[in-house]
Amino acid sequence: MDSRPIGVFDSGVGGLTVFQALERALPGESLVYLGDTARVPYGTKSAETVVRYSLEAAHFMLRQDVKMVVVACNTASSVAIDAVAREAGLPVLGVILPGAGRAAELSNSGAIGVIGTRATVGSGAYERAIHERRPEARVISRPCPLFVPLAEEGWTDNEIAEQVARTYLEPFREAGVDTLVLGCTHYPLLHGVIGKVMGPGVQLVDSAESTAAEARRLLEADRSLAADGGPDRPEHRFFVTDAPEPFQAVAERFLGRSGLRLERASVEGE
Amino acid sequence: MDSRPIGVFDSGVGGLTVFQALERALPGESLVYLGDTARVPYGTKSAETVVRYSLEAAHFMLRQDVKMVVVACNTASSVAIDAVAREAGLPVLGVILPGAGRAAELSNSGAIGVIGTRATVGSGAYERAIHERRPEARVISRPCPLFVPLAEEGWTDNEIAEQVARTYLEPFREAGVDTLVLGCTHYPLLHGVIGKVMGPGVQLVDSAESTAAEARRLLEADRSLAADGGPDRPEHRFFVTDAPEPFQAVAERFLGRSGLRLERASVEGE
Repeated sequence: MDSRPIGVFDSGVGGLTVFQALERALPGESLVYLGDTARVPYGTKSAETVVRYSLEAAHFMLRQDVKMVVVACNTASSVAIDAVAREAGLPVLGVILPGAGRAAELSNSGAIGVIGTRATVGSGAYERAIHERRPEARVISRPCPLFVPLAEEGWTDNEIAEQVARTYLEPFREAGVDTLVLGCTHYPLLHGVIGKVMGPGVQLVDSAESTAAEARRLLEADRSLAADGGPDRPEHRFFVTDAPEPFQAVAERFLGRSGLRLERASVEGE
Repeated sequence: MDSRPIGVFDSGVGGLTVFQALERALPGESLVYLGDTARVPYGTKSAETVVRYSLEAAHFMLRQDVKMVVVACNTASSVAIDAVAREAGLPVLGVILPGAGRAAELSNSGAIGVIGTRATVGSGAYERAIHERRPEARVISRPCPLFVPLAEEGWTDNEIAEQVARTYLEPFREAGVDTLVLGCTHYPLLHGVIGKVMGPGVQLVDSAESTAAEARRLLEADRSLAADGGPDRPEHRFFVTDAPEPFQAVAERFLGRSGLRLERASVEGE
């Protein structure tokens, strides 16, 4: 038994979709969330810069005395997971392997699509992870940069969202994928329109659920779950690196609840 | 006469539209451009964070021994221009006052629209500057967050761009503005579709041209122009704070030329 919290970090507030899945899968656990809103997004930046920012976030988590770090950001998971794991000396879990594993498992035809930021797609991390599980899989990947601002603007089911989705997803329809990985924490907000464009024959994989299940498995294996249902209720804390106000509304939309208390943290140069 | 370069800084590569206007208006001047691509964008971040980043950029410019600093970013000009001017001890010119002045001059009806990032619109800087020149003006402003990724994606004249523009610009059409300020360096790339949606009766103001004209006026008044047409040819340098590669193509699209040599600079904690 280990009552220390789990650290969850992301470039911004998109990782709250992962937070939410963790909270459901691990109701007895305290969670510390960090969104690097002063430098968001990571997905347009170089691997080197994303590694530097991710290590600073990991140092912040070590100061919070966490027992595990979940890298909720697909971009950071793609390019910085090894560096974070080396630095942290703790169990570190990214969103790529669980999402890739789920896609490899679900796909019948082996034709799998991956959408994400430019940095995630450019890294090839999903392809590699899918091929480790299914060497014969045919994986195609494309970045969908407009999906992030659409999700943040709340334009998730209007005609513009549908047209953008049709444009980005056409190559996946042509390739006849039967499984599509939503490889960015923002994309689950566009689940409806992506599903509509891809049609009922295509399964959408949201890494958040698979990551939360994997986190539970790891903690159980290590016998380091907090006591479920004990007298102590889990306590969650939410940190952001920029002033909280501009992100409040978007954060609440991602988390699906209001009254969220965001605290300010400094991680730069950590 | 002063042969030192002019410093031009922006959150990313959008300010290259201002660089280009300066190069045309001041062909004898050497220019040093800095794009803070490791932390781009500024427009979604808090004023406090934008001020901190802008001061770091200003310190970088001081180390380049510039004679003047042009803040090519609308967001930084809106919230950080006073702090930069205090710190720099040099002539500092933002894009807000020249753009606002031009709009106040051009508008017949006094009904003026302003579009920009959330931070720029939230600051009210354009309204204040327009009202200083025309106290009776009726100014309406709205943020248009999707215009930036559309410009970066190169989707500047397709059906999606037009539909996004129709959605964002409807309130300005209803209000009957006769002048619209493109209050973000990315927006001139969408000049065509914005003009089409607003119609021929509405004048679009691009701050880049007015800012370059104002820079020339200031240097002439100070007698600190570099010698035009002398034996020394101006030399330009382009710095970015992230690895150059991911920004190369977008930078060249903004500057309208290829073969651009981007150098890496570190400004964090300056």
